[in-house]
Amino acid sequence: MSQGRVIKRKIEKAGLAHVMAAHSPLSARLAEEAGFDALWASGFELSALYGLPDVSLVSMTQHLDMVRAMAEQSSLPIVADIDTGFGNAINVIYAVKQYERAGAAAVVIEDKTFPKVTSLVAGGRQELLRVEEFEGKIRAAAATRTDKDFLVIARTEALIAGLGENEALNRALAYEAAGADMILVHSKQKTPDEVESFVRAWSGKVPIVIVPTAYPEMNEERIKALGKIAIVIYGNHAIRASVTAMKDVFARIVSDRGIHNVNRDIVSVEEVFRLQNMDRVKTDEKLFLA
Amino acid sequence: MSQGRVIKRKIEKAGLAHVMAAHSPLSARLAEEAGFDALWASGFELSALYGLPDVSLVSMTQHLDMVRAMAEQSSLPIVADIDTGFGNAINVIYAVKQYERAGAAAVVIEDKTFPKVTSLVAGGRQELLRVEEFEGKIRAAAATRTDKDFLVIARTEALIAGLGENEALNRALAYEAAGADMILVHSKQKTPDEVESFVRAWSGKVPIVIVPTAYPEMNEERIKALGKIAIVIYGNHAIRASVTAMKDVFARIVSDRGIHNVNRDIVSVEEVFRLQNMDRVKTDEKLFLA
Amino acid sequence: MSQGRVIKRKIEKAGLAHVMAAHSPLSARLAEEAGFDALWASGFELSALYGLPDVSLVSMTQHLDMVRAMAEQSSLPIVADIDTGFGNAINVIYAVKQYERAGAAAVVIEDKTFPKVTSLVAGGRQELLRVEEFEGKIRAAAATRTDKDFLVIARTEALIAGLGENEALNRALAYEAAGADMILVHSKQKTPDEVESFVRAWSGKVPIVIVPTAYPEMNEERIKALGKIAIVIYGNHAIRASVTAMKDVFARIVSDRGIHNVNRDIVSVEEVFRLQNMDRVKTDEKLFLA
Amino acid sequence: MSQGRVIKRKIEKAGLAHVMAAHSPLSARLAEEAGFDALWASGFELSALYGLPDVSLVSMTQHLDMVRAMAEQSSLPIVADIDTGFGNAINVIYAVKQYERAGAAAVVIEDKTFPKVTSLVAGGRQELLRVEEFEGKIRAAAATRTDKDFLVIARTEALIAGLGENEALNRALAYEAAGADMILVHSKQKTPDEVESFVRAWSGKVPIVIVPTAYPEMNEERIKALGKIAIVIYGNHAIRASVTAMKDVFARIVSDRGIHNVNRDIVSVEEVFRLQNMDRVKTDEKLFLA
Repeated sequence: MSQGRVIKRKIEKAGLAHVMAAHSPLSARLAEEAGFDALWASGFELSALYGLPDVSLVSMTQHLDMVRAMAEQSSLPIVADIDTGFGNAINVIYAVKQYERAGAAAVVIEDKTFPKVTSLVAGGRQELLRVEEFEGKIRAAAATRTDKDFLVIARTEALIAGLGENEALNRALAYEAAGADMILVHSKQKTPDEVESFVRAWSGKVPIVIVPTAYPEMNEERIKALGKIAIVIYGNHAIRASVTAMKDVFARIVSDRGIHNVNRDIVSVEEVFRLQNMDRVKTDEKLFLA
Repeated sequence: MSQGRVIKRKIEKAGLAHVMAAHSPLSARLAEEAGFDALWASGFELSALYGLPDVSLVSMTQHLDMVRAMAEQSSLPIVADIDTGFGNAINVIYAVKQYERAGAAAVVIEDKTFPKVTSLVAGGRQELLRVEEFEGKIRAAAATRTDKDFLVIARTEALIAGLGENEALNRALAYEAAGADMILVHSKQKTPDEVESFVRAWSGKVPIVIVPTAYPEMNEERIKALGKIAIVIYGNHAIRASVTAMKDVFARIVSDRGIHNVNRDIVSVEEVFRLQNMDRVKTDEKLFLA
Repeated sequence: MSQGRVIKRKIEKAGLAHVMAAHSPLSARLAEEAGFDALWASGFELSALYGLPDVSLVSMTQHLDMVRAMAEQSSLPIVADIDTGFGNAINVIYAVKQYERAGAAAVVIEDKTFPKVTSLVAGGRQELLRVEEFEGKIRAAAATRTDKDFLVIARTEALIAGLGENEALNRALAYEAAGADMILVHSKQKTPDEVESFVRAWSGKVPIVIVPTAYPEMNEERIKALGKIAIVIYGNHAIRASVTAMKDVFARIVSDRGIHNVNRDIVSVEEVFRLQNMDRVKTDEKLFLA
Repeated sequence: MSQGRVIKRKIEKAGLAHVMAAHSPLSARLAEEAGFDALWASGFELSALYGLPDVSLVSMTQHLDMVRAMAEQSSLPIVADIDTGFGNAINVIYAVKQYERAGAAAVVIEDKTFPKVTSLVAGGRQELLRVEEFEGKIRAAAATRTDKDFLVIARTEALIAGLGENEALNRALAYEAAGADMILVHSKQKTPDEVESFVRAWSGKVPIVIVPTAYPEMNEERIKALGKIAIVIYGNHAIRASVTAMKDVFARIVSDRGIHNVNRDIVSVEEVFRLQNMDRVKTDEKLFLA
């Protein structure tokens, strides 16, 4: 069963897939153990890991390598955040081939111009492609996939760009007509109102994907009450959790002049060994080292 | 001033350099902000990031890419953990060239056979090279560097391998004679006794490096009381802190069915923007986007 | 049909597969157009492309990236030259997983110690693993593959190491018993005698693979007359052809003080466009750029 | 002396630098042995090596890796072909930092929109940036370099885009004013007329760079007679030579059913060993393997 099929099944069964951001095979494995349905191979998180702003600096090569490495270490379906598709429709064709081969279940392509600026930053440049040009990208992606269950998700940044609900709805309908399997609608309002209004007004047939970073009170209960939403993405909490913990632990080591205190408050080395499958190495050494 | 010179100056000035493990430019930047003196480009942490056991699976290409990316995002000197040097003395020559070009301040080479098994795992295979072969590696590294301040640090795993203090001391003296600038001595005893005994018995001229993961009570006070130690490496606390936090945050999102609670307990998206230098992007856009 | 199945079919049909060395997707595509049956993802050629000696310096990451890029651009099955398997049996397990995912049809693993020295160089260090240790690697590879048609080919360097035919035959039989699907026997004698004698004496059930670089008169006619050989690998003629041509063209440009003469003797830019599928870009632009 | 300084000195001394395209450390080394002054790290050649059309598919990561690998294996200055700078001025800033660190002597940035289409293809889409936007890129590049001798070369595609000499001259003057150290003017006319006319009309102070692929009769004699030209780039003859030779050798092996004939017409394996510095390995083994 392909990974696209796997995620579709989960949605059919549970109504809503909870998808966790990951920036490494390690975070992917932890998300799987925690019980999430799928992984969000986040461009924002990977940019942050590299210490780079999320403005189309991390290359497809780097992102794809990470997706491939995650696919090797986790059985969860991967929803790949491919930003604008790394250029125009020709780049999208190339990208979709590569991500499908890498084992991804889905790609999300957004309707901003390349190079993009990260969506949630205050005062960021937010320029959208002409609708026709983005439709071409969606058609290109849909025509390129070889597995019909591989999901092409169109992300509209119309609300982020301040163009209003009508523009967002019109774009979403156009993208559905162009072949999108789902519509991701993004908002940076501090409350769910804008997105909830969009979802209520949505007349298309394909389901909605949301990323409630800016309006965290949009939890499962509220999402299910609203309906029409198939996927909720927790977009950057893996890297934010890591930053929080490293800041705290680093500061304590510096002020303690040693690790004698922090050692009690973090997982043991043995827990890391477990996550690295060291036990499997020992078994394999017994079986195959002679 | 070369990065090798920078770390030497810090040691001259403060007597002891506190060196923090990093597995990404992000963790490197956080370590710099916290006030550490240098970075430990840890093979263990990078293996863990990839979800792989630390048994010579992560390639030099992957480790070097990470070192280079850290050097671009942090001004701290980098002590590169190159394990066994990725093979024999010929591999060491190739590695030293590359790590020096990548901007590292130092390499640590250990006297285990390739492929290695991570040092602290219970019951792990721990095989050492013949002394002469490892001396050849140290001579090769020293002869290859082009900056005389680039540090070649010899790590002996004699205590890890259970060969006793005499073997460890004899190896360390031989490595110093072969050109090592410092000796890293590693132990997996749960107390500092073994390492403290080694340091007291050490009659060589070059300083000692320790990694007190297994005996965390070996803090600055105890280290300075002992003397002879120039560098203390906190070897895996960045990845252990990250794992701890991701486990916690992931579990809470799953049980809360949303991010409404965890959102309060992790750094804001704006803090990640700051670490990504988004402000610099805005300034540069004003200056150069026309 | 898996790529392992494809190459097996070709052998069943034609009796002998002609396998051409490649070091890039471009050379892979040219080999496919020329009519070869499969590609040899040569470690020697890739090392040469990087300007590096073939002594285990090119990493698995680099070789695997090239294999993956070739698999994307050519439909021919790829026989991956993974040298010693990049370490011990644990490294072999990791490698086989990755090469199978990358789309390779087969791996060839040789019984030298890591790091290896290229086989044909005069006076090169040629050390073999103990038989038992190499059997472990072959068992590990066979146990790891998920497609039963993925070929595990054991390469013995016993003749290269000067250990004689008996040692070569005994090793080959042991490797077959350990699960090898074929035996590659390598020789640096300037005539086919040594290899022909081995093949005549071979009593195993699995077929033989040869690489007649040093004894080029060993052509299809002679191979078929001998029997038992399923694959002939032309191991480095792609890179040697390229070097020959670049040396010639570069020298002429320098002595001509321009490209006015060489231009007539090399393929046109349009021919390169064809190999890059520029026509497909034009078609896709018409379909998808709006 | 920085690599930027090296290429400036060569130009000061000889009046004209002959710069050879390379797509690998191997071709770089051959170009150095042949006597060229510098290397052209060609995006077209690298795309071709990957079997990909030259339309912004090869990532900066891939191109930069190749530049770095060439810088390690050749002492020649490298003129890096960074196409449009991989996006906007923010991408240019990121790229210039990385290429300077990688050891390049110069970058060439072209005034097409991203993603670009290769210049010489018949009927290719050729869209130029607004002048002001490209000036911003040049200013960004010049402000980013840390070595004042690192060359920022502005490439105008105005002639390629069919916009005529006036547009080309005006753009070139604007780019010089923005800080370009040289102007590369490209043409796909089958004769030198268009470029010669441009050069004669050029009133700027900075020198010109040409790439006479389409008009190969533009040799050193004609270039020097014209004056004002500092660099001639032979833009794709390394890969065209390689393709020519591989096609020929592959076809002969297939038709000969063996390598018995081609073996005589290509360089020996020993010549490849020489280019790989195998002798150095032997020396180092004697010195450092114990």
